[in-house]
Amino acid sequence: MKPINTFIEGEEVTGFYLLKSVNIKQTNGNSPKDYFDLILGDSTGEIVAKFWEASATDKETFFAPMLVKIKGHVHLYRDKLQFKVVQIRPANAEDGHQITDFLRSAPVAPTDLVSTISAAAATIQDADYKWIVDQCLAKVGDKLLHYPAAKTMHHAFYAGLAYHMVRMLELAEFIVTQRPFLNRDLLITGIILHDIAKTEELTAELGIVSEYSFTGKLIGHISLAVNWITESAIKRGIDLNDEKLVMLQHLILSHHNLGEWGSPIQPQLPEAIALHLIDQMDAKLQAAEDAVMGVAESGSWSAPVRALENRPMYRGKDKI
Amino acid sequence: MKPINTFIEGEEVTGFYLLKSVNIKQTNGNSPKDYFDLILGDSTGEIVAKFWEASATDKETFFAPMLVKIKGHVHLYRDKLQFKVVQIRPANAEDGHQITDFLRSAPVAPTDLVSTISAAAATIQDADYKWIVDQCLAKVGDKLLHYPAAKTMHHAFYAGLAYHMVRMLELAEFIVTQRPFLNRDLLITGIILHDIAKTEELTAELGIVSEYSFTGKLIGHISLAVNWITESAIKRGIDLNDEKLVMLQHLILSHHNLGEWGSPIQPQLPEAIALHLIDQMDAKLQAAEDAVMGVAESGSWSAPVRALENRPMYRGKDKI
Amino acid sequence: MKPINTFIEGEEVTGFYLLKSVNIKQTNGNSPKDYFDLILGDSTGEIVAKFWEASATDKETFFAPMLVKIKGHVHLYRDKLQFKVVQIRPANAEDGHQITDFLRSAPVAPTDLVSTISAAAATIQDADYKWIVDQCLAKVGDKLLHYPAAKTMHHAFYAGLAYHMVRMLELAEFIVTQRPFLNRDLLITGIILHDIAKTEELTAELGIVSEYSFTGKLIGHISLAVNWITESAIKRGIDLNDEKLVMLQHLILSHHNLGEWGSPIQPQLPEAIALHLIDQMDAKLQAAEDAVMGVAESGSWSAPVRALENRPMYRGKDKI
Amino acid sequence: MKPINTFIEGEEVTGFYLLKSVNIKQTNGNSPKDYFDLILGDSTGEIVAKFWEASATDKETFFAPMLVKIKGHVHLYRDKLQFKVVQIRPANAEDGHQITDFLRSAPVAPTDLVSTISAAAATIQDADYKWIVDQCLAKVGDKLLHYPAAKTMHHAFYAGLAYHMVRMLELAEFIVTQRPFLNRDLLITGIILHDIAKTEELTAELGIVSEYSFTGKLIGHISLAVNWITESAIKRGIDLNDEKLVMLQHLILSHHNLGEWGSPIQPQLPEAIALHLIDQMDAKLQAAEDAVMGVAESGSWSAPVRALENRPMYRGKDKI
Amino acid sequence: MKPINTFIEGEEVTGFYLLKSVNIKQTNGNSPKDYFDLILGDSTGEIVAKFWEASATDKETFFAPMLVKIKGHVHLYRDKLQFKVVQIRPANAEDGHQITDFLRSAPVAPTDLVSTISAAAATIQDADYKWIVDQCLAKVGDKLLHYPAAKTMHHAFYAGLAYHMVRMLELAEFIVTQRPFLNRDLLITGIILHDIAKTEELTAELGIVSEYSFTGKLIGHISLAVNWITESAIKRGIDLNDEKLVMLQHLILSHHNLGEWGSPIQPQLPEAIALHLIDQMDAKLQAAEDAVMGVAESGSWSAPVRALENRPMYRGKDKI
Amino acid sequence: MKPINTFIEGEEVTGFYLLKSVNIKQTNGNSPKDYFDLILGDSTGEIVAKFWEASATDKETFFAPMLVKIKGHVHLYRDKLQFKVVQIRPANAEDGHQITDFLRSAPVAPTDLVSTISAAAATIQDADYKWIVDQCLAKVGDKLLHYPAAKTMHHAFYAGLAYHMVRMLELAEFIVTQRPFLNRDLLITGIILHDIAKTEELTAELGIVSEYSFTGKLIGHISLAVNWITESAIKRGIDLNDEKLVMLQHLILSHHNLGEWGSPIQPQLPEAIALHLIDQMDAKLQAAEDAVMGVAESGSWSAPVRALENRPMYRGKDKI
Repeated sequence: MKPINTFIEGEEVTGFYLLKSVNIKQTNGNSPKDYFDLILGDSTGEIVAKFWEASATDKETFFAPMLVKIKGHVHLYRDKLQFKVVQIRPANAEDGHQITDFLRSAPVAPTDLVSTISAAAATIQDADYKWIVDQCLAKVGDKLLHYPAAKTMHHAFYAGLAYHMVRMLELAEFIVTQRPFLNRDLLITGIILHDIAKTEELTAELGIVSEYSFTGKLIGHISLAVNWITESAIKRGIDLNDEKLVMLQHLILSHHNLGEWGSPIQPQLPEAIALHLIDQMDAKLQAAEDAVMGVAESGSWSAPVRALENRPMYRGKDKI
Repeated sequence: MKPINTFIEGEEVTGFYLLKSVNIKQTNGNSPKDYFDLILGDSTGEIVAKFWEASATDKETFFAPMLVKIKGHVHLYRDKLQFKVVQIRPANAEDGHQITDFLRSAPVAPTDLVSTISAAAATIQDADYKWIVDQCLAKVGDKLLHYPAAKTMHHAFYAGLAYHMVRMLELAEFIVTQRPFLNRDLLITGIILHDIAKTEELTAELGIVSEYSFTGKLIGHISLAVNWITESAIKRGIDLNDEKLVMLQHLILSHHNLGEWGSPIQPQLPEAIALHLIDQMDAKLQAAEDAVMGVAESGSWSAPVRALENRPMYRGKDKI
Repeated sequence: MKPINTFIEGEEVTGFYLLKSVNIKQTNGNSPKDYFDLILGDSTGEIVAKFWEASATDKETFFAPMLVKIKGHVHLYRDKLQFKVVQIRPANAEDGHQITDFLRSAPVAPTDLVSTISAAAATIQDADYKWIVDQCLAKVGDKLLHYPAAKTMHHAFYAGLAYHMVRMLELAEFIVTQRPFLNRDLLITGIILHDIAKTEELTAELGIVSEYSFTGKLIGHISLAVNWITESAIKRGIDLNDEKLVMLQHLILSHHNLGEWGSPIQPQLPEAIALHLIDQMDAKLQAAEDAVMGVAESGSWSAPVRALENRPMYRGKDKI
Repeated sequence: MKPINTFIEGEEVTGFYLLKSVNIKQTNGNSPKDYFDLILGDSTGEIVAKFWEASATDKETFFAPMLVKIKGHVHLYRDKLQFKVVQIRPANAEDGHQITDFLRSAPVAPTDLVSTISAAAATIQDADYKWIVDQCLAKVGDKLLHYPAAKTMHHAFYAGLAYHMVRMLELAEFIVTQRPFLNRDLLITGIILHDIAKTEELTAELGIVSEYSFTGKLIGHISLAVNWITESAIKRGIDLNDEKLVMLQHLILSHHNLGEWGSPIQPQLPEAIALHLIDQMDAKLQAAEDAVMGVAESGSWSAPVRALENRPMYRGKDKI
Repeated sequence: MKPINTFIEGEEVTGFYLLKSVNIKQTNGNSPKDYFDLILGDSTGEIVAKFWEASATDKETFFAPMLVKIKGHVHLYRDKLQFKVVQIRPANAEDGHQITDFLRSAPVAPTDLVSTISAAAATIQDADYKWIVDQCLAKVGDKLLHYPAAKTMHHAFYAGLAYHMVRMLELAEFIVTQRPFLNRDLLITGIILHDIAKTEELTAELGIVSEYSFTGKLIGHISLAVNWITESAIKRGIDLNDEKLVMLQHLILSHHNLGEWGSPIQPQLPEAIALHLIDQMDAKLQAAEDAVMGVAESGSWSAPVRALENRPMYRGKDKI
Repeated sequence: MKPINTFIEGEEVTGFYLLKSVNIKQTNGNSPKDYFDLILGDSTGEIVAKFWEASATDKETFFAPMLVKIKGHVHLYRDKLQFKVVQIRPANAEDGHQITDFLRSAPVAPTDLVSTISAAAATIQDADYKWIVDQCLAKVGDKLLHYPAAKTMHHAFYAGLAYHMVRMLELAEFIVTQRPFLNRDLLITGIILHDIAKTEELTAELGIVSEYSFTGKLIGHISLAVNWITESAIKRGIDLNDEKLVMLQHLILSHHNLGEWGSPIQPQLPEAIALHLIDQMDAKLQAAEDAVMGVAESGSWSAPVRALENRPMYRGKDKI
């Protein structure tokens, strides 16, 4: 199969791709007719496609996300590659393809990621923190196996959220070794819970965020996670003014550092400083890595990267 | 008794005043000796005072807040009036003074303010909102009778918090009449709860804030109020994703409007817009009123007002 | 007649609508021909329309604003509804339609709004303020019967300016009752005059702003209103340094509060604070009300609202 | 006479100086007594002084601004030089000193500056602009002979305002030669009028600003100048919508360039751009020149300069 | 030849124009075919053009920049004029046109500009500064004869960089006469070198910038110029800590004034202040002049000007 | 010896301390006399001290930095502890104290730190990078054994700069293991050189910065380091446009991330992102660690920490 990020202008392509979005539109002009405005994807990228000959039956047949076999041409439209579909049919069992092979996914198996997180949770010494972590992980359930960490900013792929957590846990283990004055339990707990409510803030399927949920828009993942912690604490009978609990909620509330980035309170614990910096380190380096990995063979510069303040990244010719 | 805001340079004063702060310090120079660095107050204002002849017994006798009889002189020090104490003794029962007469207080009796708030709560039609309001009011208890609304920004006086709530409720009643599309229950509930956790965020006695509490610093009154609402909802069995509950938490979270002013989420409900604006209207007009009321007879301009972006207020010569 | 805000994709529509804008364009491609690019409107909304078969006569016939009878189809173009015109003719007297029925208009009759403003002007006790208000109202003349308050921000409809003034006057009456220390004459005068020069800043017909005028761009409505006040004062022989006059000009100059929002000076009178806040309250709640009222039956969220810092508004399912 | 900017720690000084400010204060401690807190000045600088032995008669004798003969010692107090007065008496006619010799003043005679400005005004071709300039200059009258251009920012000296105008006129003549497309009349008129209302905004004597006036605080020199122009135009019967008049008011309104710097409207005419830049050029280079000229012989760095965004200036060892 | 800035909708045009950009694209729809998306230019402006009938040979024939003879029609597309090409052929020697006649160019001959710069360099008294200037000018070589000063901001035309330098030199001569305390050598050197590395930062041909170079993106013209100065100084054996050298590097580093505008250090020398202001004066007045000169005969307002904070410029009806 | 951070009000202290600053001042009042205004320090902190009985001989005897034996009293002055010196003499050889024992110093021996840095330099594979690093380290010489990393922000102690580099190198080794796509040579080189020119930007002795140097103020450590790299490259004959060299200079130039923080160019290489983040991580966690370690036994909160956006840090009661 030809990977989408290798498509070049003018070539004809036949193969299996993921239908990531399907819209029925009408052509403009005197005799308008219906056509499909599509987004095709695979694990390497995505491309806009048009299917001008969509029939009435087609409208009942194709929905996103779905795996399809497709034939057509790559051409340039307003400086971007676009795909003109000539033939399209749904993939079937005999084709032998798994939809998950067509998604970008974390480079580690989701079950391994979740195991790693559970293992980290098990090392928390403080029984209250461990209880709260267990409650929240239970609440999330299987979503951890596939949720991305964001819509587009960073780790926007299958199991991206769990992958982000695991990498942050690795970094945290190094940091607490380098600076033993830090409270490891508090930091590990903070890492596991800091973005956990993104599973409620975002509506996602197959690692693709379609929209922010109602509670996501009106409350946001930071305050949602604090609600979950409050709920868990009440269940266990922890006083809401308990110092440990207050410190944990503080870590969640302050992990975006500044008010204009969504934190209602600013970091006032060393572990809160650490959580914010570890989060930044993993998010920004992942975005930089994705950007340079996505530069075409022949090129040197990525597109502007939103998570890196809209700067493009340069890929050096080779390692020196 | 001579009100403090009428003190003038050079005069001798004898009378009862409130000791709002007591610090023991040492004079500088070759033979250091102890003295008292004081703040005297009454319902009209406050003044820095020094008592150079403080004895060992005095150190055991005087603490803040306490009512004292005092004799001394007003003089100018670094462009500000200061008071030199010659004699000082604690007030006693025979003196016939109440400490509360020496505090600035809301212009309405605290019990009346609390009754008004309770009455407003009773008009809430929605049983869940009414439950949550009742729970939170019960949690605050008598603090509502005396807490100020802030350390210095606005309504920083005895029962200032309840007074602020009552005036906002008045404004809200007018606004919902002018714009019936607004959800009155949601708005009234939001007003009663928006600053309710200031009773936990701030440590205050007699309407005077001494400091921010531990939970106040690490969590803040906005997220604390959300925690209280979550706690009340769980007690009643309301689902945390219930639309009404989410909307109420949204009002609390967004009432400072912008991230840099402490709101982790921005208003997305008309009632949230209204709550923010009603809060601003009452806080800023109160600050402006306090400022012009505090201008000396002979003057025209107030000091810069922190709640009004550090601008001074001008007091017009008279109403036209 | 089918209201525009109820149009759905695919349906055929025949009816009377307002031509809000007419542009003659050429099709792209090898044999370009002329067509009409139109905006149709009624009191409920507006829609882009194309008339591909425009004849030479048509170009002489159709201009905006004009009432027309139209037949055509609704379809989707770039995610937005668009109208394809099949037939079009000007409305005539026999059709029995008034152009004003096709405009969004204030919910109160313009003559009633103007009467209310005149009545408020008549209650001003200070003879100088009353003179200035009368002069400025006379200068505006009939424009007050139809001018909108802005191009798009808020009250962008027929008689929106007068409606905004009336609602602010209502609010002001409440506020001066709640806070009697405020100078009612100054505040009422400030409200009537604060946006009065929008009638010169903006070029508008039938409540629709087509552009900013030359003086609007180079001077702006704030400084224009100050010029009008200066002119009125000179006519009556009021000294330009008269305290009352200075205070009134201050209210106008400072009513946008901050320099970056267009005020060259910041509020330093309680009435200036009040004017700014009353203006905000009415403008933002009107924008919020318009937004939720404009949400389709089937939807919950409005488009982002410019006057509300580009946030969308949520319409709650029902009043609780 | 020893210039103040040559005073060094430890020396005794006798001479004539200007009393720029006199405050009577009381010493702190057990037996408070009155003393004078003074600012002494001459054309080279100023120094804080204390006169501890002030008698009752002295309090009736000394006021600012007044020329005095003084004897005392220079010492260091909190890292700054201070002067301890031992003897003080008012200067008298026999002493043969002029108070103006003790002020910092423009390096050109004030009457010459005013003549230059009048001469420039006389070159304005447009009769309306010339009328308005003449009216405004007449309104200012003799103030132009001594007013400074600001309290502290730049040209804060005797006749500083006129000097600033003259230097800007010189620059403008060069610029219009370099770029003949500019409207010279408009630019020259704009330069003469842009800061003319500082004579009303600021209260000043002998080139020293004591405070902002009431109208200065509530209206500001930008809108005041616009009022003057409106007044002059009305007197001559120029329509307020006349293009030339609008363009002139635009120059005044926009000359601070940004809203946050006090301009309610931004430059939209090339001459408005030019006026802003010429104003900046003269103000900032004057501030830089003052700063390096004020660096002590032995030093290299000035204090931070407010008009230069609080940066200190370095004085190069010599011209290369 | 009809100048591009006089094209009007509907007319047919035949003539010689510069091909500033050539892109081959495909039409959308069922039977896609190739066409040319072009930009045509002359010394007065540019216009987008389409050539729908592009043949296979044409694709081998036309590249930018190239002079062509063209025939076609002007029409309106999305509110902007566009050109539909009917015939096109390369210009040849017999046509007798020079490509440079079709470029916007500085109004002074490039060789004269370079001579003026060399002459200014020759007046530098300090031998070290003169050496460094000579080295850097030698390094730039002929690029000074044609490089623009920017991609779009200001002086974006043939020899725009040299023209900008010359006009700044003129201004500087005036300023050092007005303020003799300034170090002329330092200022003149700073002007010649401040933008000299734009010849490395930008990739340009015929005065048209196609892109930022690799070193331009990663280092920028400010630090590049500092590198050149360091290189020249080392070659001559000047110590890198030499005061004169440090002052010169300071001028280059600080000439954008603020960190957010690209200067890593802020001006702390009067000459650095002067350099920044002279640069601003020339860049902004040039942008304003270009804007009003580009306003169509029938119009009054330019498009928003990027170098003038996106404000449009108004062209007054005539000089008064 | 009593550590300074354990001093309490009222106690008498005798011991050896470091004289960190000596100023001779005069008492105010009628008979001024000289006294010493001192700062005493040890490895735990510092305290302001006064010696009122300073003799003429004393003025010749005491200078900073010097080790002294001192006797006196701790008292409170303006809410801060101060020390009143009764006796003072210089320490001598017999006293057996080393001045370095009285300084706060990195927790690792400076020679070990420098060895670690040299060892890291030796692992750089690229010969050019290794050459440049060796040149720059040679240029710094012994300063690396004692320079602090800043005046007050972070690592403001003896050998703080080397310690900061070593900890960043540790972090970098972890990061390149976690993300092998990063160019290790470039990152290691960048870390060693990013702050190396602080040894020229700051004037420091015994780990204490007294001021910014002349070149530090006018050029800054970022551009100074770039100059050093240029100088080294020229010495080795590396072309200034060599990609590797450009990338290295880019890392230095962009390591403060934003223009307003001093970087003239923003990070566009993954290694530049990493360098910035590693620098932040080490600087901020060090500042947080210093803050909580400096909280008194009896307290919970540090003073506001400048490197942490002026927030105070809370020290949790114990590790959970």
